[in-house]
Amino acid sequence: MARPMGPVRLKRANPITIAIGSLLCIFIVYFLVFSGGSHTISAARNANAASHPLSPPTSPFRKSNSKGKPKPPPVTRYNMNNVTTTPHPIDNNEHVLVLSPMARFYQGYWDNLLKLTYPHELMTLAFILPKNKEGNAATALLQAQITKTQKFGDEKERFKSIIILRQDIEPPLATQDESERHKIENQKARRAAMAKARNSLLFTTLGPSTSWVLWLDSDIVETPPSLIQDLASHDAPIIAPNCFQRYMNPETNQMDERPYDYNNWQDSPTAQELASKMGPDDILLEGYAEMATYRSLMTYMAAPGESLHQEVPLDGVGGTALLVKAEVHRDGAMFPAFPFYHLIETEGFARMAKRLGWVSIGLPNYKIYHYNE
Amino acid sequence: MARPMGPVRLKRANPITIAIGSLLCIFIVYFLVFSGGSHTISAARNANAASHPLSPPTSPFRKSNSKGKPKPPPVTRYNMNNVTTTPHPIDNNEHVLVLSPMARFYQGYWDNLLKLTYPHELMTLAFILPKNKEGNAATALLQAQITKTQKFGDEKERFKSIIILRQDIEPPLATQDESERHKIENQKARRAAMAKARNSLLFTTLGPSTSWVLWLDSDIVETPPSLIQDLASHDAPIIAPNCFQRYMNPETNQMDERPYDYNNWQDSPTAQELASKMGPDDILLEGYAEMATYRSLMTYMAAPGESLHQEVPLDGVGGTALLVKAEVHRDGAMFPAFPFYHLIETEGFARMAKRLGWVSIGLPNYKIYHYNE
Repeated sequence: MARPMGPVRLKRANPITIAIGSLLCIFIVYFLVFSGGSHTISAARNANAASHPLSPPTSPFRKSNSKGKPKPPPVTRYNMNNVTTTPHPIDNNEHVLVLSPMARFYQGYWDNLLKLTYPHELMTLAFILPKNKEGNAATALLQAQITKTQKFGDEKERFKSIIILRQDIEPPLATQDESERHKIENQKARRAAMAKARNSLLFTTLGPSTSWVLWLDSDIVETPPSLIQDLASHDAPIIAPNCFQRYMNPETNQMDERPYDYNNWQDSPTAQELASKMGPDDILLEGYAEMATYRSLMTYMAAPGESLHQEVPLDGVGGTALLVKAEVHRDGAMFPAFPFYHLIETEGFARMAKRLGWVSIGLPNYKIYHYNE
Repeated sequence: MARPMGPVRLKRANPITIAIGSLLCIFIVYFLVFSGGSHTISAARNANAASHPLSPPTSPFRKSNSKGKPKPPPVTRYNMNNVTTTPHPIDNNEHVLVLSPMARFYQGYWDNLLKLTYPHELMTLAFILPKNKEGNAATALLQAQITKTQKFGDEKERFKSIIILRQDIEPPLATQDESERHKIENQKARRAAMAKARNSLLFTTLGPSTSWVLWLDSDIVETPPSLIQDLASHDAPIIAPNCFQRYMNPETNQMDERPYDYNNWQDSPTAQELASKMGPDDILLEGYAEMATYRSLMTYMAAPGESLHQEVPLDGVGGTALLVKAEVHRDGAMFPAFPFYHLIETEGFARMAKRLGWVSIGLPNYKIYHYNE
C-alpha cells in the first residue's frame, strides 16, 4: 500500500487563520421579518415546541425569575421510541431534513420544493450559502421566497422550520459558469469545498428527531412531487434518483433531455486499476474523456417503458438528489473533502457508507432535472 | 496499493434491521421531573431562548392560533458574527459542548464536572448510553445527579442544558471488566462501537452556536478545575491532556500514579512499516507487547518540574479528554468505525483531521486521572 502512514500535504497553510475566519463568517439568518417580537413569544408558549426536530432538549439557563429567586431550568421531555425510518414515512410522522448547499438562487428550485407532497410540517429546510457578494444576493432572493411562503403562503405550504447558515468555505463554493466549473483541474478543489459545506450543514443541523436526510442541490428544478415518499418506499439506506437536464435539441428543434449527473455509478475493473496506480492524493473523476473509467453510469441505464422503481446497486453517488437514512450519517458517514479510496465528496460518501455497512442504490428510470444555464 | 477499490467486508449482515433497530432505540430522556408544565411555558417565554446552543432557528409549525386563523411561524433571529474560537473563550462567551459516551456512571466523574470553573451557563452536556440493563442503571444514577444539580444546586452550578441519548450500538458499548475490555482481539469491535457512539452523539447534538467540543470520557474522575480554559488557551484545533491513573503502589505502600491513555502518540517508522504490510481491514493498536510500534507515547513524556503548558505534536489522540474546535468537526472530522490508515476511533480521528488540514497537539505535563476499577 502506497505510503498509508506517510506525510500528508496539508491543503491549508494556516488552519488557525482559516478557523477564525470561517467561524467569524458563520451567520444564521432568519427567514421572516416581523414587526415585533410578539410572535416569538406567543409561539414559544406553544406546548408543542418540544416536538420540533431541532428544538433544544432543554430550555436555556435562566438567571432568575421575576421574583428574583433562581428557578431551575425548564423541562421538556422527548420520547423518541416512535422515531422510525420506514417505507411509509408519512404514516409514521417521520421528520425529513432537506439540505441544500446554495451559491445561486433558482426560482425553479423553490417552486419545485413547494410542490413536494410530503407533509411540509414534517420538513425542515436548511441551507448553507457563502458569505460573499454572490451568496448575499442568493440569500436575499431565498429569504424573499421564504417570507412569501412561511408568512403569506397557504398553511399547508409552510415548512416546519428553515435554517440558513452563512459560511465561507475555501476555495469558494461557486465559480463563474458551468464550463469553468467542470474543468477537470478545478474539480478536486471545488468538490473538496463542496464536501466541507455539506459536512458543516449536516453536522450543524441534524437533530435528534430527524429520520431522513434529503440532499437536494439548489439547481434541481424539477422532481416528481412525491419524491420523498417514492424514494423512502424503497427502504434503502442511501437512494439516488436519476438526474437529467432538459435542453433544446438543435437537430429536432424540440425540447429533449440529456444525462446530467455522472456521479451515480457502478465500479469497474478499469477504474480500480487506475486507482491502484494513483498517488495518495489523486482522485478519480467521472465524465472526463481523458480519464476513461469504464464505470457503468446510472444516467445511461434509463430505459423507456421500464418501471420507475427498478433498482440498481451503486458504488458511487451524486448529490443532486439523495435520500439518506439519518442513522447512516449518525454512524459517521460524511462527505470526505480529501481523497478517500481516491474518491471525494458524494462519491467518497458512498464509499465511506459502504465501509460502515450501508449500501447505496439508484433508480435509473426515476428522473429529476437540473437547471439548464 | 492493496485493493483500494476492492470489495469490502460489510461488518453488518443486515443493515436494514440494524437501521430500524438503532433508530427505535434512540431515546432522549429529560433531566428534571417537574410537577407540571408551567416551567416549560414560562421558560419558553424567555426572550433569550434564541441564544441556546441547540435551540431551533425557528419555532415549530403551528396549525392555527386561538382565533382559528393560520398564523405564520414565529421568528427568532440569530446573529452569529460573534461566535469565535479564541484562546480566551470566557471573554468571548464561547459555548462548549461536553460530550461523554457513558456505559457506567461514576460519581467522581460528575463531581469533577461540577468543579469545572468554566461558566456552567456556557456549557451544554450531552451523553449517550446504551439501551440495556447496564445503560438503564447508569442513566438512573446520572439523572439523579442531574436533578440534584439542575433543580436544587447552586445557580452557578447549573449547566445551560443537558441531553441524554439512549441508543444501542452493536457490538455492545461495554463489556464486563477492564481486563476483558483490553484484550487485543476485542479492541477492534469495541472501538468501532465506541466510534459509532461518538459520531451519533456528535452529529445529533452539535449546534450552530457551539464553539468548542470537549470530549470527556465518563471514567475521568479528576482534572484541573480550569481544564477548559487551560486547553483553550493553546488555541489548537485539537488538544489532549495527559491521562494517568492513581493506584496504591505495593512497593511503597503509598498512592502513586501510572500512565493510562496510550492513544496519544507520535508516529514511528516501525508503526508505518507494520501498517504497510497489513491487510485493508487490519488496525494498529497501541499498548500491546505483541504489536510493538515503537511510537513515542505522550504518557511517557511527562517530566516533573517542566511547564504544564509544554506542547508536543501528536499523530494519534485518545478520547479520555480532548478539546476540539467545533469547526474541525464541521469540516467532517469524525471517528472512523472502520480502519482508516489502519487506525480506528480517536486515533483515526486525528488522522482524518490531519487529512483535513488540522493538527493535534498534546500537553505531557498537564494531567487528568482515570477511574481505578
